[in-house]
Amino acid sequence: MRLSLDRSRALPFLTDRDALDGAVLDAHGKVLTGGTRSPEMLGWRQMLLEPDDALIESVQNVASEIRERADVLVCVGIGGSYLGAEAVNQALAPYFGADSPEVIFAGHHLSPAYHEQLLAYLEGKSVYVNVISKSGTTLEPAMAFRFLRRFLEERFDDADRRVIATTDKSSGVLRGLADEKGYRTYVVPDDVGGRFSVLTPVGLLPIAAAGHDIRSLFYGAVGAARGLTDAGADHPALAYAGDRFAFHEAGYSVELMSVMEAKLRGLGYWWQQLYGESEGKEGKGLFPVTLQYTTDLHSVGQYVQEGKRLFVESFLRLDDEKAGLTLDEEPDNPDQLNDLAGTPYGAANKAAWEGTAEAHREGDVPSWTWTLPRIDADALGEAIYTFEHAVAVSGTMLGVDPFNQPGVEAYKKKMFRLLGRD
Amino acid sequence: MRLSLDRSRALPFLTDRDALDGAVLDAHGKVLTGGTRSPEMLGWRQMLLEPDDALIESVQNVASEIRERADVLVCVGIGGSYLGAEAVNQALAPYFGADSPEVIFAGHHLSPAYHEQLLAYLEGKSVYVNVISKSGTTLEPAMAFRFLRRFLEERFDDADRRVIATTDKSSGVLRGLADEKGYRTYVVPDDVGGRFSVLTPVGLLPIAAAGHDIRSLFYGAVGAARGLTDAGADHPALAYAGDRFAFHEAGYSVELMSVMEAKLRGLGYWWQQLYGESEGKEGKGLFPVTLQYTTDLHSVGQYVQEGKRLFVESFLRLDDEKAGLTLDEEPDNPDQLNDLAGTPYGAANKAAWEGTAEAHREGDVPSWTWTLPRIDADALGEAIYTFEHAVAVSGTMLGVDPFNQPGVEAYKKKMFRLLGRD
Repeated sequence: MRLSLDRSRALPFLTDRDALDGAVLDAHGKVLTGGTRSPEMLGWRQMLLEPDDALIESVQNVASEIRERADVLVCVGIGGSYLGAEAVNQALAPYFGADSPEVIFAGHHLSPAYHEQLLAYLEGKSVYVNVISKSGTTLEPAMAFRFLRRFLEERFDDADRRVIATTDKSSGVLRGLADEKGYRTYVVPDDVGGRFSVLTPVGLLPIAAAGHDIRSLFYGAVGAARGLTDAGADHPALAYAGDRFAFHEAGYSVELMSVMEAKLRGLGYWWQQLYGESEGKEGKGLFPVTLQYTTDLHSVGQYVQEGKRLFVESFLRLDDEKAGLTLDEEPDNPDQLNDLAGTPYGAANKAAWEGTAEAHREGDVPSWTWTLPRIDADALGEAIYTFEHAVAVSGTMLGVDPFNQPGVEAYKKKMFRLLGRD
Repeated sequence: MRLSLDRSRALPFLTDRDALDGAVLDAHGKVLTGGTRSPEMLGWRQMLLEPDDALIESVQNVASEIRERADVLVCVGIGGSYLGAEAVNQALAPYFGADSPEVIFAGHHLSPAYHEQLLAYLEGKSVYVNVISKSGTTLEPAMAFRFLRRFLEERFDDADRRVIATTDKSSGVLRGLADEKGYRTYVVPDDVGGRFSVLTPVGLLPIAAAGHDIRSLFYGAVGAARGLTDAGADHPALAYAGDRFAFHEAGYSVELMSVMEAKLRGLGYWWQQLYGESEGKEGKGLFPVTLQYTTDLHSVGQYVQEGKRLFVESFLRLDDEKAGLTLDEEPDNPDQLNDLAGTPYGAANKAAWEGTAEAHREGDVPSWTWTLPRIDADALGEAIYTFEHAVAVSGTMLGVDPFNQPGVEAYKKKMFRLLGRD
């Protein structure tokens, strides 16, 4: 079974939706043939059509060394340089207990307390660092890496061996530093933007170092990419892209990604960047917000049900109806749950999804439901590519460039000016 | 120094704002004198004006016992029964290293994997459970508590001593069960709604069990409550409430709570429930979304800067300009950061806040900036009360009942029907 999309609670809100299919297939064709805006940034698809098995094996080998030698791998990066790896690692890890090696992200913000306490925490541990930055000049990772690099140099004879730099193939500050120090490096391809980079070494190394199967992850995406080649307008990626465009044009403003399994929250955050950066420009786009149910039904659920009407909603659930602990009969029924005897957690969670989708429909919130067959590397790879392809199509339909992010520079410029940097 | 509010990037977007001050003070007066809708739910203020020191001491004593005897305290609750405690514990804990006892939340969703793995993780550990539910019938905590209760009963001779129930004073399933088993109990007051309950035993016990100073937390809020008694329209809580109402009436839809320190993210989630449930009804309210900067500037930052114009923004920052590791001169300047020599992390983070607030202002996103003097129990108590009071005022101005949450029932009813429960 593969990733599936249920549109039954979305389509009733759209009129004459079929008339859009031509435009959907037109945009899809542009993604396939390099006819989008910034066509030089379509490498995230091309690299799946021509898999580089040697690269995957190389990453696996370095990851094996890290797993043998490190207590902690610190991954330094921001935005697309960590969200994908965090999403996959969170989805594939057990909920409780310590990982080995522990994978810690840093340089993804400027918290003074975080970075100071991190260095103290690393004391006495065997540490590796994967620094991930195309240019090396983004302030957050650059600052974090300076402190981490010196931490390593002051403590380990083989400090330079403990750093793996994922950066530009030939230029930039980090490339220069890596060449000077002799770090092992991986390349951030020129034709793959940060938010599309989880299946390059940007994401693959931290995921492999955490012990997950990057070959299955990659090939899950390969299968999805190949499957899109001859897809019709009812393919989940294309149907979703077209529906989103239709809702956008109808005036909806916010898309909720409501995950029904807590460990998929990170995938929601990854999606949030992918969609927010790809579509949110020229005054357009659906503002992407991740929720986790049923937790957030007891938080913003009231608003989603009865507040301003702004929303379309993507449920992301797992096909795990029979999973988990199952309620049984208990003598005297002290907690009055016996009427649910025979109900496993998964069935209750499924009822929560379906009940919520129905309640929101009655509250004029259209929704799709994505169902993952299971949480493993293969299924995540398929989901990753599906969402990537869909946003390339929906962004193209909106008329924006899905591959740039000009607005991210605005705060950076002002921050640098305030720091006396220009 | 106390919590402060900078409105300089909000007021320029509002015309004739002063004319609203009368309405602000009128709503404030209703909160002070019981003239709001559901005035029987104003206990969150009253309990601060008449502090119950014996209750705080009792909670501290039980917490001491838990800290001495437990490896893990599992707190079972959803929504207001855990968001406040999680927010405070996250803000006050160090970033790295294991807590003792570990405080784990459960019953805040229906994930099959989470609850199954939790029981496996608890095996062989000394476990206490704090079950928090006014009625005992909310499905998420009820299911989790059934499995946890039986886990304790099968493993510990003193199982009933290891359960503390925070519930209704006299009625409901959980009260009945607690009386039958002889659990120690605390009361969820009738006049305090879940989202306002962090300073009752609902929040105080998990916070004290994590080793934090609940007396300072409580009295920080007491100070803020007393300070509001004679406040003018320029008091931060009232100014914020009035500005929010003005933006709402002007057509803004979404409020971002953008925290500049990662460990304040939980406070954002607590605020999200407080504002979403209090205001999001009758087609009204600002939809509350928590972001964490600078992390999310590399995620939805693009959208906030250049997507649809939906936003007002609250920055929540810490007065920690001089904190953290400081960049110095490094020979040969290998990472080209030497021009920032002398810059501590805190100064860079401050520049990121100010640069972002300016960039967003230019992108037509009005913003306030809340500055916490420091992160400690006292300052958090002040912030908690300030946000509570403000939403009571702004909800009253909107004309909604800030103390009910009728929409939360919608999914529950449908979920129960799907489970064959009615």
